[in-house]
Amino acid sequence: MILTDFSHYTRSRVDTYLTQKLNQYKPAQHLQEAMSYSLFNGGKRVRPMLTYATAALFDEANELTDACAAAIEAIHAYSLIHDDLPAMDNDDLRRGKPTCHIRFDEATAILAGDALQTFAFELLSSPHLNRADLQLQLIQELVVASGRHGMVTGQMIDLANVGKNIDLAALEQMHQHKTGALIRASVRMGAISVGLTQPRTLASLDAYANAIGLAFQVQDDIIDITSDTDTLGKTQFSDEEANKPTYPKLLGLDGAQRLAQDLHHQAVSTISPFGKNAQPLIELANYIIGRNH
Amino acid sequence: MILTDFSHYTRSRVDTYLTQKLNQYKPAQHLQEAMSYSLFNGGKRVRPMLTYATAALFDEANELTDACAAAIEAIHAYSLIHDDLPAMDNDDLRRGKPTCHIRFDEATAILAGDALQTFAFELLSSPHLNRADLQLQLIQELVVASGRHGMVTGQMIDLANVGKNIDLAALEQMHQHKTGALIRASVRMGAISVGLTQPRTLASLDAYANAIGLAFQVQDDIIDITSDTDTLGKTQFSDEEANKPTYPKLLGLDGAQRLAQDLHHQAVSTISPFGKNAQPLIELANYIIGRNH
Repeated sequence: MILTDFSHYTRSRVDTYLTQKLNQYKPAQHLQEAMSYSLFNGGKRVRPMLTYATAALFDEANELTDACAAAIEAIHAYSLIHDDLPAMDNDDLRRGKPTCHIRFDEATAILAGDALQTFAFELLSSPHLNRADLQLQLIQELVVASGRHGMVTGQMIDLANVGKNIDLAALEQMHQHKTGALIRASVRMGAISVGLTQPRTLASLDAYANAIGLAFQVQDDIIDITSDTDTLGKTQFSDEEANKPTYPKLLGLDGAQRLAQDLHHQAVSTISPFGKNAQPLIELANYIIGRNH
Repeated sequence: MILTDFSHYTRSRVDTYLTQKLNQYKPAQHLQEAMSYSLFNGGKRVRPMLTYATAALFDEANELTDACAAAIEAIHAYSLIHDDLPAMDNDDLRRGKPTCHIRFDEATAILAGDALQTFAFELLSSPHLNRADLQLQLIQELVVASGRHGMVTGQMIDLANVGKNIDLAALEQMHQHKTGALIRASVRMGAISVGLTQPRTLASLDAYANAIGLAFQVQDDIIDITSDTDTLGKTQFSDEEANKPTYPKLLGLDGAQRLAQDLHHQAVSTISPFGKNAQPLIELANYIIGRNH
């Protein structure tokens, strides 16, 4: 399956699942609208693609895989809403559209983010999935990736780093928490959803995920200075304006591009031994390095 | 056991558990401080008391009970941090101390709230609790009480109601979501933690919890106008100033006090058939009506 097809397959599958589950219950109308606005705002669904592609290494994706992909996307959506708030990155635009607090208001954006986090755990703890052992393990994976062990601490470090000169190790530590942890969880949870829980296999998947997670971030820094605002869907040079540390600043543009290539090579060589089923994960690695938005 | 003893027992037990689990992992120093500041800010631990008291109806509290009490308190702490934010209730004072965004800053407060929500699910999904079936059921209870089905929707309704004339039914619906759902979960989870999952027993516990949950709110409205700022630890007449609908406004002070008494009577008569083990729950109902802060 080529990447475009796989992307369509993922989007259709995860979006159907998210829509169905979100609409099973109608809370305060305004809250539901804000949750839905941020969940379906044209995101690329990279994390769900990783989840489905990893499940496909071992077995057919099942409803547990759907729940993982949807839960991870709910966590991702909540984190973007809160990161965009005036007290944080203060962004008005996300993927070319008004951010949640601009489209609605600040209070609604805070609460929609809060409810999307709970929604993620709602999806994974649903009794009808009927795999308590795996579900609990998946919830732990998502907890470790998204809370104080992972994403939230990454955002704290990010805010603390604004305007500071930090070295490469500190920049990597920040990204490992802020985005790397959830990307790693996307891969690991895909495997666990089809019953693959051996630590050795999970360790090679971690190596793949760590490499593409970091590559994703290096490429993000690169396209912030090489793509224009229309292509990006957000303001070009926004890192520069926010005075944020980036790979091109520390390594130069050439150095950052070389690092992205090295990480791509690491990712592909780690995953290739899994044979032809690894093709979607290899194409995802290619996409992450090749993208310009 | 008299209520003061039970309150000390609860506080010691839940605070020890929270401290131990919180310190098992040290995230960004600043984040941990803010989480800890809000978790240990002198809260009355009413919800953990309900959890332990309900467990005691049936059996001895075990570590699953501790995890429930701690998780519920983490959710409660996160909700207070976010409710106090400038974009929401804009409160500077909570229990006589600066609120989280005043003591730290707004970004830290948003992230500490986010991380406390995840922490709640971390506690309940811990593999070493070793009761996957019950843990998953407890996670579902907490999800339903705290997310779009419960607390978050309650806060949305609350914000939407400011300055509006709403009737008694609408006021009750708001409180059932905003505070009632988590109080009900505190009771139900206490029972489930000791293996009590029969729907009939849970239904009588619900009746008790619904009555004291509402009584708690009615009493809150009453003491906002009958206790002074020092006793309250927050500003007297703050509901009035925020132009919020309250029971005394709709029923008069006498009417509100009668309603609180009726709810107290309902709660006690529902729980009395459980015999002498119900004593802590009865004393908790007495406390909720009798308190002046």
